[in-house]
Amino acid sequence: MIAKIAPQARVMDLTHGIPSFDVRLGAITLQRSLPYVPPGIHLAVVDPEVGGRRSPIAIHVSEDDRILVGPDNGLLWLAAQRFGGIVRAVDLSRSPYRLEPVSATFHGRDIFAPIAARLAAGLDLHEVGEPMDPDEVQPLPMPMAEVEGDELIAHALAFDRFGNVMLDLEHEELTAGVGLRLGEAVEVNGVRGIYATTFADVAAGTLMLYQDANRAMAIAINRGSAREILGLQADADVRIRRA
Amino acid sequence: MIAKIAPQARVMDLTHGIPSFDVRLGAITLQRSLPYVPPGIHLAVVDPEVGGRRSPIAIHVSEDDRILVGPDNGLLWLAAQRFGGIVRAVDLSRSPYRLEPVSATFHGRDIFAPIAARLAAGLDLHEVGEPMDPDEVQPLPMPMAEVEGDELIAHALAFDRFGNVMLDLEHEELTAGVGLRLGEAVEVNGVRGIYATTFADVAAGTLMLYQDANRAMAIAINRGSAREILGLQADADVRIRRA
Amino acid sequence: MIAKIAPQARVMDLTHGIPSFDVRLGAITLQRSLPYVPPGIHLAVVDPEVGGRRSPIAIHVSEDDRILVGPDNGLLWLAAQRFGGIVRAVDLSRSPYRLEPVSATFHGRDIFAPIAARLAAGLDLHEVGEPMDPDEVQPLPMPMAEVEGDELIAHALAFDRFGNVMLDLEHEELTAGVGLRLGEAVEVNGVRGIYATTFADVAAGTLMLYQDANRAMAIAINRGSAREILGLQADADVRIRRA
Repeated sequence: MIAKIAPQARVMDLTHGIPSFDVRLGAITLQRSLPYVPPGIHLAVVDPEVGGRRSPIAIHVSEDDRILVGPDNGLLWLAAQRFGGIVRAVDLSRSPYRLEPVSATFHGRDIFAPIAARLAAGLDLHEVGEPMDPDEVQPLPMPMAEVEGDELIAHALAFDRFGNVMLDLEHEELTAGVGLRLGEAVEVNGVRGIYATTFADVAAGTLMLYQDANRAMAIAINRGSAREILGLQADADVRIRRA
Repeated sequence: MIAKIAPQARVMDLTHGIPSFDVRLGAITLQRSLPYVPPGIHLAVVDPEVGGRRSPIAIHVSEDDRILVGPDNGLLWLAAQRFGGIVRAVDLSRSPYRLEPVSATFHGRDIFAPIAARLAAGLDLHEVGEPMDPDEVQPLPMPMAEVEGDELIAHALAFDRFGNVMLDLEHEELTAGVGLRLGEAVEVNGVRGIYATTFADVAAGTLMLYQDANRAMAIAINRGSAREILGLQADADVRIRRA
Repeated sequence: MIAKIAPQARVMDLTHGIPSFDVRLGAITLQRSLPYVPPGIHLAVVDPEVGGRRSPIAIHVSEDDRILVGPDNGLLWLAAQRFGGIVRAVDLSRSPYRLEPVSATFHGRDIFAPIAARLAAGLDLHEVGEPMDPDEVQPLPMPMAEVEGDELIAHALAFDRFGNVMLDLEHEELTAGVGLRLGEAVEVNGVRGIYATTFADVAAGTLMLYQDANRAMAIAINRGSAREILGLQADADVRIRRA
């Protein structure tokens, strides 16, 4: 669709690997990857409520002149915050640039891609949708780590394809909460491991707590799947203490 | 291979997600996606008989000036019909533009891609292969839904990665066959559900019969896999009745 | 990252399908695909030791003016040999073109991509890293097939997504070792099959030994997974004899 409407636009695929319905992992992936991507029109679709009451939207963020296009279900929220918040937003529900007839289940093809292409070809936000209050854009609810006695209770935010577990925990919270220092032993949901820098620091099969490539804390098993071995679901408690 | 032979050609990947050997899902995917893709040379390979008696072919369809390149095993058939049928066809078995020595198992690399690239670079169909009768091109056998008493017996044509089930059934046949109207309860292989418009119309875990984004009938379980829950294989009977 | 630093560079993705940690399949895939890819900067990352002692490197090979960029863990080795060996090598550990701060776990983003982009934009090897002795580049250990009585003991080098098994065996070794000729019956780890040319030569479910698209011997089950049916792990013995 984009090649048809905006043949000059360069199209870059960031990922087609977000598991079905995982809006939060989509949101985190956008937030973490866009700083490394040239400014432009960023189209994202993880959309379990497609055809329902959630609106298709396009938003302009404060920094870098980036525009995000996608469903108003929290998917764009973290990325928008990362770039200084939303300056302008439009609702695409009645956009003249939808592909008619709009199907009930494939808005990626019928709404998001055609409108992203128009924006890439130079149309302004106000030309493709109706203005909406930026404060009305749906935020993404996120869990929050907390200290309980000598334990830090973090949560499994999302998982990557290696089974590494992203936590709702920054390095500073970890230090302040349980006073753990790099190289020390740690216990995560009862499994012993090490607070390490990288996979090469621990033996195969060993659990490690580490600061991931986006400066958030994460858990991995070297050459294994922390998700499987700890038996974690999304949002599950991850209890961290010194061992 | 394409970048080597036709460096100016823009290459767009439609999908690398067709399951092994699933010629029919490949054919349906081509048929359904090409109308949204700019005209050009369309290369498709799902080719379980590679190196056997099926010929590599290129065909020119009646509408839109599109050329399809691939194995003559039915893969190109539905798309060709969608664009008005085959106007010209050539057999590539002895094409001078094959990559020599041609391997027995990787014609995508050795025949299809090099010849698609030559066509993209401007060669005419008659320059890359030997003329064949368009009527000799292999059709794709498809099941056909039928009415039996108060039941419609459709078939599972193919499955997408969500486990949604595509049927050999149009909306008009459904209405005529069992008189079902939008919003009504339905029974599909004994499982109750709703004839709905989109996923957001039914609770998580509920079966829905719906018109998919390509105007064919399909079955889904909201946030689940209809394929798994109904235990369906390709071509399996899907019995639909009012509930 | 590449689009940011070298917006004019054409980026082609060869595969994102190498299973986690499978350095050898990555190395074989590079070796086998690069001859069909236009010369350029070839970036590869399968990097279980990321952040450990293995260095990031860039190497210039003897033929075709190709540069390979990736971890020094054997991943680039086979491709380098395929193109006449390494002429020049640089260690990127302290490259001024790394993305600071360099993360401990995502060198693809922070080292390999930015430096590949600089090379694509025209920088010379000596500008992006410190010279190292080409003889110091890490080779890739590979098993070797051998004859034992009337059996040839080959090894499972790698598997593709169909479950086909690549062997460390050339056609000449097969003929010399057990005197097998095309069309003859063969026994592979006790399972009977045929030394065939292509999948269409054997019935569905039948094992075949064949020369794959890269002129190496391989094992497949037509429309099935040889890997599963033979229960093979990487490096497992594959005993071949006339049946």
